[in-house]
Amino acid sequence: MTPTFSLVARDPATQARSGVLHTAHGTVATPVFMPVGTRGTVKALTPDDLREHGAQIILGNTYHLYLQPGHDLIARRGGLHRFMGWEGPILTDSGGFQVFSLVYGGIADEVKGRRPQHPSRLGDMVRVTEDAVLFKSYLDGSRHVFTPERSITVQHGLGADIILCFDELPPFRAGYDYTRESMGRSHRWAARCLAAHRERDPQALPNPDQLLFGIVHGGVFPDLRRASGETIGAMGFDGLCIGGSLGADKAQMYEVVAMTVPHLPAGLARHLLGVGDVDDLLEGVARGIDMFDCVSPTRLGRHGTALVRDRERRWKLNVQNATLREDDEPLQAGCSCYTCRNFSRAYIHYLYRAKELLGIRLVSLHNVAFLLALMADIRAAINEGRFTALYSDWLGRPPVV
Amino acid sequence: MTPTFSLVARDPATQARSGVLHTAHGTVATPVFMPVGTRGTVKALTPDDLREHGAQIILGNTYHLYLQPGHDLIARRGGLHRFMGWEGPILTDSGGFQVFSLVYGGIADEVKGRRPQHPSRLGDMVRVTEDAVLFKSYLDGSRHVFTPERSITVQHGLGADIILCFDELPPFRAGYDYTRESMGRSHRWAARCLAAHRERDPQALPNPDQLLFGIVHGGVFPDLRRASGETIGAMGFDGLCIGGSLGADKAQMYEVVAMTVPHLPAGLARHLLGVGDVDDLLEGVARGIDMFDCVSPTRLGRHGTALVRDRERRWKLNVQNATLREDDEPLQAGCSCYTCRNFSRAYIHYLYRAKELLGIRLVSLHNVAFLLALMADIRAAINEGRFTALYSDWLGRPPVV
Repeated sequence: MTPTFSLVARDPATQARSGVLHTAHGTVATPVFMPVGTRGTVKALTPDDLREHGAQIILGNTYHLYLQPGHDLIARRGGLHRFMGWEGPILTDSGGFQVFSLVYGGIADEVKGRRPQHPSRLGDMVRVTEDAVLFKSYLDGSRHVFTPERSITVQHGLGADIILCFDELPPFRAGYDYTRESMGRSHRWAARCLAAHRERDPQALPNPDQLLFGIVHGGVFPDLRRASGETIGAMGFDGLCIGGSLGADKAQMYEVVAMTVPHLPAGLARHLLGVGDVDDLLEGVARGIDMFDCVSPTRLGRHGTALVRDRERRWKLNVQNATLREDDEPLQAGCSCYTCRNFSRAYIHYLYRAKELLGIRLVSLHNVAFLLALMADIRAAINEGRFTALYSDWLGRPPVV
Repeated sequence: MTPTFSLVARDPATQARSGVLHTAHGTVATPVFMPVGTRGTVKALTPDDLREHGAQIILGNTYHLYLQPGHDLIARRGGLHRFMGWEGPILTDSGGFQVFSLVYGGIADEVKGRRPQHPSRLGDMVRVTEDAVLFKSYLDGSRHVFTPERSITVQHGLGADIILCFDELPPFRAGYDYTRESMGRSHRWAARCLAAHRERDPQALPNPDQLLFGIVHGGVFPDLRRASGETIGAMGFDGLCIGGSLGADKAQMYEVVAMTVPHLPAGLARHLLGVGDVDDLLEGVARGIDMFDCVSPTRLGRHGTALVRDRERRWKLNVQNATLREDDEPLQAGCSCYTCRNFSRAYIHYLYRAKELLGIRLVSLHNVAFLLALMADIRAAINEGRFTALYSDWLGRPPVV
């Protein structure tokens, strides 16, 4: 039997590595960035757009698809692949992150440490017990219950190639004791997810060959990350995610990754959940991460921000900036995406000023293509033994990991 | 020298005819439908989408592009083709229609006879003199003056392959006397447009080989339509449009076309301005029309209406209809557009319910492709001597023209 994940090359100077991940809908060369199709569509882009620009795998959100149009409806359509017209690999998250992050605006920020918690509001919208999470729908306030088993059942209906364990997202400021308690619960839930997955009837599902990834918790605490990595890493999952609180800022996130990765089995692919800034991708790869996902390229596109090779400006260009009004260059010189092959900054600037929908599509497409091209460059660099040079070229300094 | 327009075939039973129109950016097989890119983009679609689905020529609106981003800016970019990345033929209107139709909501309906006029409000937003039209911008209320010469200059800057004479749009209920007076003015303006076009310095313009089409007026009055057809038809234009009031309803519009076409030179292409319903295309072709344009396919797409082969429902399907929720068929069985090749009604229904942008793009693309495919079928039918059968197949009765 082909192993799920095979290493191809290791960088001699960092933890960076390249590999191949095998799924029921094809293989994925890693390190990989997966565009996010939260609600069964990578916003404003078609499957063709994605395929033609090098997307290998995309992510769908279980929470959203469960609420609308429902996993049963999607299962009756033959699963998410057929429903959305994407025949490549798909990963679905478990719904855990959204249960906690969407119950009220901002806990996504809170989980990532950017905002103080509001425990009272949290308690109103979501309740956690040993058995289950009760939460209200972001669409209509209706009440729902997710258990680990329920999340797995929903993901079986969606039929993604990679599914994730259901876990609790403790707020960043939860402190050591709550983080440890929550981690223990997520570990017990992981065992329940694994059992539920093993008990499935594959022939009754749109995708009989789903892989189940575990999620490593432990917040910002080295001993908890180690304990979680060792525990989850030994449970028999097909791959691993680094989840939970990643700290207050990027520096702490890199620390969390560095303190976690050494405790993960080398033979399993490692996904850093919800991360996708240019520097985060390079820093993550340098610390041994194989998989990334983030809504940022399409979200930035909707807000008129294009990704460009400009480290000073955090790789961001506001396309509505007046300096672009008569700029005949593409968004990024040398970029081979459809947008940059065909349109000038002046035209895109005009489309946003005129509020024409095409602008969102063109910049979203460029941004996704930009990150996919970066990842392809990273893979080639690892395979050719020059990752350190590529890293330095992008970040202006050598890796320190 | 190649003639601008060459007839290929004539239908023996109707006035339908096929031909080839030669422009600086390629040839156009007629009868043709041109998708409308009002503001330098066919809404939500890329040039590739259009090309791959058989669009031969598109229309841009001078009024909108003059106000934003400005024809000078577009000229400095090398013209509208290069600015918007569409290398095929383009037609721009003169701005006349929008000057009158956008000064307040609804005069577009009024011109087409669907709404009573409001002369007082009209007078507040637009003033017509023998020399010029003064109007306020729909964007910011700023005051602008268009003369026939100014419209031609603006269209020279945009660089479309076919440009139109600047004309006045009298309201449908203007009556015989005003319609005759307005027609006379539009004729004098046509002569001024022709003179301004002949005096241009082609080498200073983005597109030195622009064709100028005249516009036939006369409202719903046979003697005026005849007079205008003969006058405009003899002035030396490269092609002709049927403009002005087309009557109170579709039946009257077909009468207006039928009373006008016999007075137009057979050797010039004939464009029925702003018309594009399925029945209008078939009825127009049967009465000798070669060219059509309409915003309807993309406007319908934004509002969630798909074009389908269902005469009973006026060829319209509301994709948000609950009956589509689990419908695994494409929007239109047998349609070869990207949308129908890849997505079900259930998925598109879901996208609209979820307010996902991709829905607008997929339905807009289908609608444009649907009309382009109809026109291709019409051309083939004329060339193969079976237009009457095609017409009857679509409309359920033989043509009566």
